[in-house]
Amino acid sequence: MSILIIGSVALDSVETPAGKIEGGLGGSAVYASLSASYFYSDTRIVAVVGTDFPKEHLELLEKHSVNVDGIQIKQGRTFRWSGTYGKDFGEATTLRTQLNVFATFHPEIPENYKDSEYVFLANIDPDLQLEVLEQVKKPKLVIGDTMNFWISGKRNELLKTLKKVDLLIINDAEARQLAETNNTIEAAKIILTLGPKILIIKKGGDGAMLITKDSYFFAPAYPLTTIQDPTGAGDTFAGGVVGYIAKNDNIEDAILRKAVVYGGVMASYNVEKFSVGRLQELKQEEIEKRFEDFKKMTTF
Amino acid sequence: MSILIIGSVALDSVETPAGKIEGGLGGSAVYASLSASYFYSDTRIVAVVGTDFPKEHLELLEKHSVNVDGIQIKQGRTFRWSGTYGKDFGEATTLRTQLNVFATFHPEIPENYKDSEYVFLANIDPDLQLEVLEQVKKPKLVIGDTMNFWISGKRNELLKTLKKVDLLIINDAEARQLAETNNTIEAAKIILTLGPKILIIKKGGDGAMLITKDSYFFAPAYPLTTIQDPTGAGDTFAGGVVGYIAKNDNIEDAILRKAVVYGGVMASYNVEKFSVGRLQELKQEEIEKRFEDFKKMTTF
Repeated sequence: MSILIIGSVALDSVETPAGKIEGGLGGSAVYASLSASYFYSDTRIVAVVGTDFPKEHLELLEKHSVNVDGIQIKQGRTFRWSGTYGKDFGEATTLRTQLNVFATFHPEIPENYKDSEYVFLANIDPDLQLEVLEQVKKPKLVIGDTMNFWISGKRNELLKTLKKVDLLIINDAEARQLAETNNTIEAAKIILTLGPKILIIKKGGDGAMLITKDSYFFAPAYPLTTIQDPTGAGDTFAGGVVGYIAKNDNIEDAILRKAVVYGGVMASYNVEKFSVGRLQELKQEEIEKRFEDFKKMTTF
Repeated sequence: MSILIIGSVALDSVETPAGKIEGGLGGSAVYASLSASYFYSDTRIVAVVGTDFPKEHLELLEKHSVNVDGIQIKQGRTFRWSGTYGKDFGEATTLRTQLNVFATFHPEIPENYKDSEYVFLANIDPDLQLEVLEQVKKPKLVIGDTMNFWISGKRNELLKTLKKVDLLIINDAEARQLAETNNTIEAAKIILTLGPKILIIKKGGDGAMLITKDSYFFAPAYPLTTIQDPTGAGDTFAGGVVGYIAKNDNIEDAILRKAVVYGGVMASYNVEKFSVGRLQELKQEEIEKRFEDFKKMTTF
């Protein structure tokens, strides 16, 4: 089995009530691949960085057995994002987005990636997501993410991509926006007619739900008091979900439920430090410990 | 065992995206006692109504074995509230509050109520909550509720009352306001030093958490697509919690967890119709069915 992740590799400057970081390693593909690496060893990234991208960041990914052959290095600066979080660590306020080399990015899937069985299309332009799917051979499962920007700005393209997505992972506001309804559950039912057969709706600090035609599952968020930086929590969540599914090479309901919980475990660790500070140093026993905590806190 | 509930009995005018009702039966004591009545038969209300209060409403309560001896009938009009809910059925916007006979209300606990073992102080002036506790003999468990209005306006009085509350049931914004922190989990830890040994934090459509010194439990909300009127959901939740605890006459962790789930079951039914439309016609098998649904949607 093998996981292909397409998304952003970025340098983030983030300020939160707990402190700040300048140009820290970030981007959806980074968070997702590091998270997946704790479950599964053959993870491949397709992304682009500039010539300013620190070599040690690539080494960090490789140290976690993430294959970086698909990261293009282009003349110019790496994609940079800066944002702040308020006292409640809720939605980020974007201060600046500099696309840089990401502005003209087109995914080129290396020959040795084309047989990837699990393909995670992180949140990028739905046209680029489709370009990826046109290049891979016959994935077992296509996992997708998107955001409000594409839902409103590239709706038709997104709907076209969604037809090829098996498992969609988005947040609740995005789900309602996509389905054009105010009720999240109703939104889920509508989205399940657009292509995805499995839907995971993230609710940030309020947990996540897994919805298929036949099943409904809800996992709470881990109760945290020490949050430093919520950046990448959603991608880390998705990476855990994809990694656990690939590890088991199975999408039956019981596996999907556990995948959602492992996604929550990974996201809960990620927010404890800035950038990938926590994600790069996790131990398997910490992951299992928190998985058991989720069991304890939901059993009745 | 016996449950004493002190709170409001009201006539509510409510408009939601699903329709409207004029002067429907409402009030915290009504929702809580009807909800509790499905678990436990000896429930007593202390409240006040005006001479305009329809007799059939009292008969409805009595039909559900709710003892209404403690409902004072005073010259004047019954407490009336009117409000609207937006498209997302979130927080109500209050249009008008007419306290009427409730403005001068002082709880008088009838002699045959004073031995009540489970006392639920619904959301009223903390001074009145304290007056109740001074009149009852030796309750096994005091359950309390409050709201932002008292937390900011009568903080000292509330803190005094809280010292005598064993189980506090409030929503997450109130918990953070009471504890003066932005983190709900941190708020919970602080509140557990103020008197209550058990804390239930309601998160509306995002479920509820149960927190004690030694245990953390989270129950999701039931996934609903047909909501008519969220009025009274919190009181209905609390009534289910109190009713289930009284039925079992036990506050061990396993009972408390189930109580929270039953609270969620009752609240989920309540919002399906205006006023007490759904709450007055529930069947035991419907309650058990939805309790099992909660099991299915949280097991992994």
